[in-house]
Amino acid sequence: MTTDTPQDRLSRAKEASRETARLTSDDKVRALESIARGLEENAETIIAANRRDVENGRAGGIGDSLIDRLTLDDGRIAALARAVRDIAVLPDPVGQVVGGHRMPNGVALEQVRVPFGVVGAIYEARPNVTVDIAALALRAGNAGVLRGGSAARESNTVLVQVMRDALERAGVTPEAIQTVDDFGRDGAKALMNGRGFVDVLVPRGSAALIETVVTESTVPVIETGAGNVHIVLDESAPDDWAREIVVNAKVQRPSVCNAVETVLVLRQAAPRLVPLVASALQSEGVAIHGDDMVAGLMSNIIPATDEDWATEYLGPEIAMKVVDDLDEALAHIRTYSTGHTESIITTDSRNAERFLAEVDSAVVMANASTRFTDGGEFGFGAEVGISTQKLHARGPMGLAELTSTKWLARGSGQTRG
Amino acid sequence: MTTDTPQDRLSRAKEASRETARLTSDDKVRALESIARGLEENAETIIAANRRDVENGRAGGIGDSLIDRLTLDDGRIAALARAVRDIAVLPDPVGQVVGGHRMPNGVALEQVRVPFGVVGAIYEARPNVTVDIAALALRAGNAGVLRGGSAARESNTVLVQVMRDALERAGVTPEAIQTVDDFGRDGAKALMNGRGFVDVLVPRGSAALIETVVTESTVPVIETGAGNVHIVLDESAPDDWAREIVVNAKVQRPSVCNAVETVLVLRQAAPRLVPLVASALQSEGVAIHGDDMVAGLMSNIIPATDEDWATEYLGPEIAMKVVDDLDEALAHIRTYSTGHTESIITTDSRNAERFLAEVDSAVVMANASTRFTDGGEFGFGAEVGISTQKLHARGPMGLAELTSTKWLARGSGQTRG
Repeated sequence: MTTDTPQDRLSRAKEASRETARLTSDDKVRALESIARGLEENAETIIAANRRDVENGRAGGIGDSLIDRLTLDDGRIAALARAVRDIAVLPDPVGQVVGGHRMPNGVALEQVRVPFGVVGAIYEARPNVTVDIAALALRAGNAGVLRGGSAARESNTVLVQVMRDALERAGVTPEAIQTVDDFGRDGAKALMNGRGFVDVLVPRGSAALIETVVTESTVPVIETGAGNVHIVLDESAPDDWAREIVVNAKVQRPSVCNAVETVLVLRQAAPRLVPLVASALQSEGVAIHGDDMVAGLMSNIIPATDEDWATEYLGPEIAMKVVDDLDEALAHIRTYSTGHTESIITTDSRNAERFLAEVDSAVVMANASTRFTDGGEFGFGAEVGISTQKLHARGPMGLAELTSTKWLARGSGQTRG
Repeated sequence: MTTDTPQDRLSRAKEASRETARLTSDDKVRALESIARGLEENAETIIAANRRDVENGRAGGIGDSLIDRLTLDDGRIAALARAVRDIAVLPDPVGQVVGGHRMPNGVALEQVRVPFGVVGAIYEARPNVTVDIAALALRAGNAGVLRGGSAARESNTVLVQVMRDALERAGVTPEAIQTVDDFGRDGAKALMNGRGFVDVLVPRGSAALIETVVTESTVPVIETGAGNVHIVLDESAPDDWAREIVVNAKVQRPSVCNAVETVLVLRQAAPRLVPLVASALQSEGVAIHGDDMVAGLMSNIIPATDEDWATEYLGPEIAMKVVDDLDEALAHIRTYSTGHTESIITTDSRNAERFLAEVDSAVVMANASTRFTDGGEFGFGAEVGISTQKLHARGPMGLAELTSTKWLARGSGQTRG
């Protein structure tokens, strides 16, 4: 890396974004194919750099699950290249006409999708995010400025260099992909305060990281991620739906944000459903933090504290509580939900529709697993993250959410009367 | 006012927003009609309060144009009531289905417009904004928390009370309209940092106010307004379009953000267009700050400094510069534009299309007056403000921009494989 400043990188990204905004869809496909090939051809170098990160990580005592997320091998690099090719074949959102009409005076108004310009990302120790975000940003005509976790520093440095070389081979300015990793905390600060240079900033990672980015940024931020996800078991919930959906939502992949964290069981259904669902969870190795009612209906229940209701376990643990009625379930969700995903299991359409209408979350479900809140499952082909804020994007974000719009007005001398 | 805290007001607004979110369109129309009637019936009280603001303002030495914006009389109150009724008849955005499909496994996905929840507004000394924003927020199913300028404090207190009483008469919780004016700076701070309570914050006013709100807020902000607006006169610009559009864009209402501030003339057209356009402007009383080339072609030109290129005059002044070619015009705009509106006057379609494609502003025009960048002119029926950021909304914002979306998923026991 050169001896420039974080601000120099942002300026070069902004300058490059004018070029990427004008690339045709074909140009962008070629650039992404070049990146995919670059990843494959440089797999050895990438893995060698990654090995240094992993060794540093182990020496620093980071845990097994983090080491797992950090590690790249041949299979994962092949998967990364495949992901880039999958992004390349997604429809180009840029240039889509999303609205428009002719004004009474004859001026033709057209609202079209345009790239944001510069998309910033601040994330933690998963080097695949480096490639993912860069490819998504580029497909939507943006330049990307990346700030990954220090634990993946060596991997990210090589990945960014491989992508920049690949852009150059494809005839696209390499300045369209920048990292500010080498500036440490100053790199993150430059991104968060890059007004006029960073058009949108996406934090991806822990609740603490997201909170820091939201609080410290003066550039527009899309808040992603934290999921304290609830499933409500209504009086009318069928045994099989209750058991299968709760188990799927907790066990299929417990470490992700759309996994369920708290199950609320309506009192009338508790004697039937608590033993059924709790034993299914326990047989999958899930520890249950329950209130007194739950403990009275099932053995091996850890007494739940108020903290449990607020906890995103992200692992084989779950909270379970008996509530008097749907009102109490909705009030509990209002207090503790992070606004990501909630689901109700019921065959009573009044309760289903009330739940769908009143729960104020990005995705509200009836009779489906919360694990479906996912860009791939929603048919977007790729996912930038899951927005838990209400501005610009809510829920899984696809390529279109990495664009803005602008209005074009074509007249013939019109003035305002 | 009671002796509660700004945070209490935000909590009550959040609570009220659950009620306003569930109001039918008819309910909201009734509430807005009640507000319109309340304004008319309380015109005397409102004018008396406003008179105290105006007297305080004069005693404090504030200028005539500010006094004018501050003043309410019978005519202006009638106009306010009319504006509320105009908002009431706009189509309700809430509940609009904006997307959706059936997942391969049969889960029905639907993306629907929902209210934001709580819309905050921080603005300056125009009491009409108090009514305008409250009515717009309510029409879109939101609660509103208002923080107006201290110069309009007495007027705003009465206006908010009149609107709250009107809501109560219409059977809607008065807590849906709150002011935090009485807390001074603490009220604004509570709004800017009301995470979990304020879903979106809209600043309206001077560039300094907007900058403060953007910089200090931890809640999502929609940046509105500042308009350093350019018109480019291409070599092929017809005399009449050039003269009429520039004069209209500067003179028709110089104090607003869509008025033109700088005219860039291509060198080849300068001998023809500078005298023509400059003399038309001067005969309308507009002072021209020009570069040497302009001064060489026209008399009574004030020498322009670099500061002029960056100035939003908002009055009968304009900057004028001769540029070598379209490249230089585009570079000038990149440096000085606030991303609001720019227009080119040309009959050369290549130059028009290049300008439309490359200028990175909310509204980019060919051969039309920049004064058309306006919610009313765009057919939105009302205007929340003009967004100059790229997130969520860009350009004139209507009611739809005061909503978010949520995803509804209706299944029958589906789990993820």
